[in-house]
Amino acid sequence: MGASEDQTLVTDIPQPLARYAPYRRAGEFVFLSGVIAVNPATGLIVKGFDDISADAARLIGRTGEFSVDIKQGPILAQSWYVLDGIRRTVESVGGRMSDVQRLVQYFRNLDHFPCYSSVRRLFFPDAAPASTVVQVSALLPTDDILIEVEATVYLPNPRV
Amino acid sequence: MGASEDQTLVTDIPQPLARYAPYRRAGEFVFLSGVIAVNPATGLIVKGFDDISADAARLIGRTGEFSVDIKQGPILAQSWYVLDGIRRTVESVGGRMSDVQRLVQYFRNLDHFPCYSSVRRLFFPDAAPASTVVQVSALLPTDDILIEVEATVYLPNPRV
Amino acid sequence: MGASEDQTLVTDIPQPLARYAPYRRAGEFVFLSGVIAVNPATGLIVKGFDDISADAARLIGRTGEFSVDIKQGPILAQSWYVLDGIRRTVESVGGRMSDVQRLVQYFRNLDHFPCYSSVRRLFFPDAAPASTVVQVSALLPTDDILIEVEATVYLPNPRV
Amino acid sequence: MGASEDQTLVTDIPQPLARYAPYRRAGEFVFLSGVIAVNPATGLIVKGFDDISADAARLIGRTGEFSVDIKQGPILAQSWYVLDGIRRTVESVGGRMSDVQRLVQYFRNLDHFPCYSSVRRLFFPDAAPASTVVQVSALLPTDDILIEVEATVYLPNPRV
Amino acid sequence: MGASEDQTLVTDIPQPLARYAPYRRAGEFVFLSGVIAVNPATGLIVKGFDDISADAARLIGRTGEFSVDIKQGPILAQSWYVLDGIRRTVESVGGRMSDVQRLVQYFRNLDHFPCYSSVRRLFFPDAAPASTVVQVSALLPTDDILIEVEATVYLPNPRV
Amino acid sequence: MGASEDQTLVTDIPQPLARYAPYRRAGEFVFLSGVIAVNPATGLIVKGFDDISADAARLIGRTGEFSVDIKQGPILAQSWYVLDGIRRTVESVGGRMSDVQRLVQYFRNLDHFPCYSSVRRLFFPDAAPASTVVQVSALLPTDDILIEVEATVYLPNPRV
Amino acid sequence: MGASEDQTLVTDIPQPLARYAPYRRAGEFVFLSGVIAVNPATGLIVKGFDDISADAARLIGRTGEFSVDIKQGPILAQSWYVLDGIRRTVESVGGRMSDVQRLVQYFRNLDHFPCYSSVRRLFFPDAAPASTVVQVSALLPTDDILIEVEATVYLPNPRV
Amino acid sequence: MGASEDQTLVTDIPQPLARYAPYRRAGEFVFLSGVIAVNPATGLIVKGFDDISADAARLIGRTGEFSVDIKQGPILAQSWYVLDGIRRTVESVGGRMSDVQRLVQYFRNLDHFPCYSSVRRLFFPDAAPASTVVQVSALLPTDDILIEVEATVYLPNPRV
Amino acid sequence: MGASEDQTLVTDIPQPLARYAPYRRAGEFVFLSGVIAVNPATGLIVKGFDDISADAARLIGRTGEFSVDIKQGPILAQSWYVLDGIRRTVESVGGRMSDVQRLVQYFRNLDHFPCYSSVRRLFFPDAAPASTVVQVSALLPTDDILIEVEATVYLPNPRV
Amino acid sequence: MGASEDQTLVTDIPQPLARYAPYRRAGEFVFLSGVIAVNPATGLIVKGFDDISADAARLIGRTGEFSVDIKQGPILAQSWYVLDGIRRTVESVGGRMSDVQRLVQYFRNLDHFPCYSSVRRLFFPDAAPASTVVQVSALLPTDDILIEVEATVYLPNPRV
Amino acid sequence: MGASEDQTLVTDIPQPLARYAPYRRAGEFVFLSGVIAVNPATGLIVKGFDDISADAARLIGRTGEFSVDIKQGPILAQSWYVLDGIRRTVESVGGRMSDVQRLVQYFRNLDHFPCYSSVRRLFFPDAAPASTVVQVSALLPTDDILIEVEATVYLPNPRV
Amino acid sequence: MGASEDQTLVTDIPQPLARYAPYRRAGEFVFLSGVIAVNPATGLIVKGFDDISADAARLIGRTGEFSVDIKQGPILAQSWYVLDGIRRTVESVGGRMSDVQRLVQYFRNLDHFPCYSSVRRLFFPDAAPASTVVQVSALLPTDDILIEVEATVYLPNPRV
Repeated sequence: MGASEDQTLVTDIPQPLARYAPYRRAGEFVFLSGVIAVNPATGLIVKGFDDISADAARLIGRTGEFSVDIKQGPILAQSWYVLDGIRRTVESVGGRMSDVQRLVQYFRNLDHFPCYSSVRRLFFPDAAPASTVVQVSALLPTDDILIEVEATVYLPNPRV
Repeated sequence: MGASEDQTLVTDIPQPLARYAPYRRAGEFVFLSGVIAVNPATGLIVKGFDDISADAARLIGRTGEFSVDIKQGPILAQSWYVLDGIRRTVESVGGRMSDVQRLVQYFRNLDHFPCYSSVRRLFFPDAAPASTVVQVSALLPTDDILIEVEATVYLPNPRV
Repeated sequence: MGASEDQTLVTDIPQPLARYAPYRRAGEFVFLSGVIAVNPATGLIVKGFDDISADAARLIGRTGEFSVDIKQGPILAQSWYVLDGIRRTVESVGGRMSDVQRLVQYFRNLDHFPCYSSVRRLFFPDAAPASTVVQVSALLPTDDILIEVEATVYLPNPRV
Repeated sequence: MGASEDQTLVTDIPQPLARYAPYRRAGEFVFLSGVIAVNPATGLIVKGFDDISADAARLIGRTGEFSVDIKQGPILAQSWYVLDGIRRTVESVGGRMSDVQRLVQYFRNLDHFPCYSSVRRLFFPDAAPASTVVQVSALLPTDDILIEVEATVYLPNPRV
Repeated sequence: MGASEDQTLVTDIPQPLARYAPYRRAGEFVFLSGVIAVNPATGLIVKGFDDISADAARLIGRTGEFSVDIKQGPILAQSWYVLDGIRRTVESVGGRMSDVQRLVQYFRNLDHFPCYSSVRRLFFPDAAPASTVVQVSALLPTDDILIEVEATVYLPNPRV
Repeated sequence: MGASEDQTLVTDIPQPLARYAPYRRAGEFVFLSGVIAVNPATGLIVKGFDDISADAARLIGRTGEFSVDIKQGPILAQSWYVLDGIRRTVESVGGRMSDVQRLVQYFRNLDHFPCYSSVRRLFFPDAAPASTVVQVSALLPTDDILIEVEATVYLPNPRV
Repeated sequence: MGASEDQTLVTDIPQPLARYAPYRRAGEFVFLSGVIAVNPATGLIVKGFDDISADAARLIGRTGEFSVDIKQGPILAQSWYVLDGIRRTVESVGGRMSDVQRLVQYFRNLDHFPCYSSVRRLFFPDAAPASTVVQVSALLPTDDILIEVEATVYLPNPRV
Repeated sequence: MGASEDQTLVTDIPQPLARYAPYRRAGEFVFLSGVIAVNPATGLIVKGFDDISADAARLIGRTGEFSVDIKQGPILAQSWYVLDGIRRTVESVGGRMSDVQRLVQYFRNLDHFPCYSSVRRLFFPDAAPASTVVQVSALLPTDDILIEVEATVYLPNPRV
Repeated sequence: MGASEDQTLVTDIPQPLARYAPYRRAGEFVFLSGVIAVNPATGLIVKGFDDISADAARLIGRTGEFSVDIKQGPILAQSWYVLDGIRRTVESVGGRMSDVQRLVQYFRNLDHFPCYSSVRRLFFPDAAPASTVVQVSALLPTDDILIEVEATVYLPNPRV
Repeated sequence: MGASEDQTLVTDIPQPLARYAPYRRAGEFVFLSGVIAVNPATGLIVKGFDDISADAARLIGRTGEFSVDIKQGPILAQSWYVLDGIRRTVESVGGRMSDVQRLVQYFRNLDHFPCYSSVRRLFFPDAAPASTVVQVSALLPTDDILIEVEATVYLPNPRV
Repeated sequence: MGASEDQTLVTDIPQPLARYAPYRRAGEFVFLSGVIAVNPATGLIVKGFDDISADAARLIGRTGEFSVDIKQGPILAQSWYVLDGIRRTVESVGGRMSDVQRLVQYFRNLDHFPCYSSVRRLFFPDAAPASTVVQVSALLPTDDILIEVEATVYLPNPRV
Repeated sequence: MGASEDQTLVTDIPQPLARYAPYRRAGEFVFLSGVIAVNPATGLIVKGFDDISADAARLIGRTGEFSVDIKQGPILAQSWYVLDGIRRTVESVGGRMSDVQRLVQYFRNLDHFPCYSSVRRLFFPDAAPASTVVQVSALLPTDDILIEVEATVYLPNPRV
């Protein structure tokens, strides 16, 4: 099955923000495009707890204190949104999060790393992938984007 | 055929600016070094429309208005030069642009993205690769370099 | 052999600074996490020639002039430490440096590139991998870190 | 007819954002106040393609790619809005765009000039006015405003 | 009457700070040089309420509170001084403030606009001229100058 | 004679750097576009004494001291080039420099004003026009441009 | 009556944005937490005249000029909102504004002081409290907050 | 008992870093000097988890991940150290944390607020004091200090 | 005796720079407004040794070396002026410097602390008050102000 | 004759601004302290043409145009003042300007070099000394000082 | 005796931090290399009072107040260390501090001058050398170095 | 022989960039002007290896790697050019490099020191002169200049 075909089956994965594929399968590997926290349905950028489900917000640490949540909300919510998008994409091609072998994580501010790391632990409770973390000076499409994550998946025998 | 041998066949691909390989073949994959807009023959950096062929300049949008072209020329010409270099490298190992599975694109200024995107469309008219885009704070060798693109190619059965 | 198991055999490779794997094997490839110059045993950051062995310091160019060594020591020592860590990891999974196919090298300041390049030549005397070099605005865990290197290894038939 | 009277006839021209006239007729000339992209009806600032009509957006180059449009949308939409406002003002006093003799164009960032120039061409397909272009450090009323254009019109025999 | 002659009649208008005319009459129009708040008699720059008459200071909003007046005094006093200088120049050539058709107003800081606007209202109680407002990065002769105003006057039949 | 026709007679005046007219005649007035120091024949930017004639360089103050001339050359040469271009345009429509009524002068750095002023005196030995001077944050097309001058000419009875 | 109890009676006073008391009574004194302009009911930040009642906006100086109001609206509206919140808190414990003995006022920009002072006069028409004013580099929860005011109240015999 | 005497009984409270009292009792109140995270015994500044007890570190959230702890350790450890110092001072004069009525908290970076708030909750599980939070540009004695807290205590009947 | 009355007795204490009380008495306490180094009689700001008495200048360390005194004069003189103003205010309500219980000291630059501390020792030779010191980003009314000090006085039985 | 004695003869040479000698004679050489433009009699800093004699101002290029002179006055006047001070010192020890062998010239802004150079030519019409010129980031005693010059004089046989 | 020989006698003078001589004798003069506060024995940089002897620390003004000493300690200790190093070097060649004729003093921050000046007075109680003081933007080897002093000594008849 | 005469014999030494002597002989000493890397014949600034001879480039460390040489080329080539210029000047007056007693070396960026030091070793293989090194904020004539070196030579018996 070629790369272009299997994408027609996907309806719920992060859509790219420009003219490129959300992922490409090549042999035993699947390369995901870098994922950011933009709602594919609406094009709106995730800016805080209000932009994700209440369950997810509670899960990743919403405190209910206004000043606390307004500080940590953006990175916590984006971390959840991005990793959940990767999960959905991986599952759409028949894999699981444990099939992710490598993550490159681009931050706008590495002081956000502890929050991101606490969320990532929820998605990789056992064996986390090989990981690279750097801080870059900007991400697409606007300054509201705090993190972009690129994943490489090893999937010799898709379950789908 | 090992990585070091097949490079001896290549004469027209982007040469690295330091002591490293322009690409490495590993199993079914070919990993390209990051490509920037430096003329391998002369070591000169592409700074505008005058540094590429007139045909290419016209193709990617030279307007003939001095103030417009001096603003957009550098990123348009570098985008063309870099992607064309990737094309030549991929073809030198028996592949086609549609074999490129993944692009990591480093910008000095993401405001250049629309111009780059318009050029990339010319090289990937159908199915674009998985794509990651970030803005970094500097690229080699000098501040004139606006973009660097790294490509991963899937080439199980080279045509050459 | 799965990714999680073979790590239990490793005792001397760069340990990750957070909750992720130092490397992941996936088919014929091994993906290393980005490596930085932090001593896994002590958690101390390599800041100069005094933090590596005297032999290594001499090999990579310690001059004995205080003002010279205090300027070039940090990048030379970190370059050596990082590439040596990659070497030990690769060897721990049965490979050699010539099996490294691709390097992504993140700098805090690209003026450090000449020093890094002179060290890299010691580790890759023959055929260097495909290489990408960018300058980012920060690296984990602190501002003392000057370089991070991510390696992709092709290892169809491990020797171990 | 004095300056204050003929303004009572105008209903659809850009209204000033403070206490001054949208234009003043003086002998054979009409001097327009500097025009910015604020909707006179609502006081809202034009920030992208969504703030102008879909027809205008398509005409001036909306691509449909999220990351491209979010980058170029603000300047393209403001350029269209400002020049269209000048057109409506000129027509309200019995003139045509070809009666505009002189434009002073203030930008917040001259990198926006190519986009503006492509829009201006739509309004002045034949003979463009004498033109001055500078980049200033701020414009009223907020930092969202990217361009202000001041027009001088020669109208010895108004058609209205 | 030519431009050079009628200037000999003027004794009390803002004198230019370099070698150029305070105004030039051309047909039915009078073009004023940009006016700043420098006392022509002494060459001193207006820096606050103390540099204008007590009546003017009271009129434009001196509060008597030290911290308030030291913050708003510079822009209020310069606004008054500049507009009063324009008034005197216009009257010296037989016009009135209502003959001013067009103002270009250069600010060092657009946060000063509300104060300037409150003063301008005193000089143009009825019909204000066409108006353009921008913030520039510096004005002559020193950084104490906060505003420069250029006026165009329509005066087909001077009263003098 | 309309604005578009009389331009066909002009061969030696500053050509615009984008799609707009070098000047427009409207009734008794001629409005010039802002003029910068770019050679219309070659598109090269005037950067110092070497880019103008030796006679002009001597006239405006070349000292022959390397460090002095490299500091003052750019603004002196651009001032001369710009004002000479205005002179040639004015003469091409049958006027003289004394017909220029109003100048708006945009600087990148007002510390350049003394040099500019010394050159302007050569072009307006008797009666200088009404004059406005501001410092803006950028000019087209590149950062090498230090000054732009816009002129308004009163020419009721052209001599040509 | 202890500090924790009497708060249960209060329904309309500024609620803290994190986990702390809006005020504490201690002997003859009441210490208020620093108050900022956040609507307790909605958690929205007061950003201009539209976020307070029309009566309050008119009272504190809304002009109806778009450019003026967009500049001064934020600090005027926040000043009113903060001081009115202090008033309501003081009254909720049986005091009056004249019982406030001491104010510490934190600004983001002391150029806002004149606007704040004009509003404060409405709340303290007779005897103003002892007052300290400083400019700090940030306030909770976001950069939209321009002012925070802390009040100390002397209330030996509460009227409630 | 006067202010100077009762201090002789104190051995374990935060000592001031210059010539002033750690606290002053005045009537029913005790005013504490601003407390920072400097070890009174050694003069060393608390820079992370290693500078406080292992129990405290575990209590306030040490994760064991190097990159996480190196980011959050400084503010968490300083928050604990400062509040624990206040507790010891309050207890030394016969009070309890619930007697603290008012806190002014100075931060170097308000992004640290969520971490501080999580620690403060441990010290004030029930009723938190009235609270003011601002970000200042520096604190004594060095840039390593991230927070300073000033407390006011109401202690009409000391228990000691 | 109320707060407003007893102020009528004071003639020589620091007058506020805006519309607020120099101090407020509340029960056993007196709260002083923040004091800065502005001469109440003249409104002039203390900028160095020349703005205070020669005796005071000698007392606080004038050296007679021009470059030394011009560096240290501003902070030394302001420190003396501010603390002396507090002393006069405290004495005007029947107290002594030893009645001051608490000082909050706002600096523009904490490198000034050693100079301030040496002056404060002169005013508090025995028991210094509880003290908080922070660096803020600006003080009223202008950038010449280097320090502001707020004092709380305990005065159960005024001597006047 | 020793260094300390011959200074008693000098009454009119630049006095040092701190505790050091204006010059020291050592064998055949005289070393001057760095000279800046501060009037030894009054301690006032030379800030423009008004601070030197009218003759000197005319000699070094005062134009009479306010905006020109306020830009160039400071460096021209300081250059004259400093070099004239060196001349007086050299003559006080029996030398002439032609005995100065070496100058080290510290600037705050090297754009001032052309003005300085034009003044220096007046003092060294024939053979100028060996010369070093650098731009430093600050000079004593305040930011008004634009230049400091240190001279070394060769004086084997003083004429005095 | 040549320059290279007499250095063999020296054991306790500041050793250079790179490959150059600590001093050179030339005829009647001795030229010292610039001296900084680095301990020659250990290569450690003097950062405060703890890095010099307790006697020296007391002599130059250690106060025992933590916040004061941490602010002034670095410059005071470096000043003492540097001047004492010069003293030892001069004595090692048979001279005395009074033989020093000229000092060039490079600061990182001229606000440190008063502290340095107070230390220099201890070394030159009588006749200080000719002196030049500038602020440079960096010194070798690291940013901890606050001052470098270069001395020229006149020593026609060495006493050793 | 006087200073002015012997210069007429010199044809190949660094010529000054303004009106001053390349060196001055005074008694037993020769003072060189600060030398920078400008080609005296052409006035061109040395910017890299291409601006010096191939032999010199190889000698000082050209690697042939584009990215390495473009980073280190400027400082290496300028260091060589400057020191070789000093050598030629010294030899032109009959001296040798070992006669140089003192060097003051001004850098634009002290990170260049290691490269400079490696070149200097070639010119002073035995006994290096007394040396002072500082980083200044600018050098003449342009920002391309990275280093300026001033030399003092002791030459009691010239060999020429």
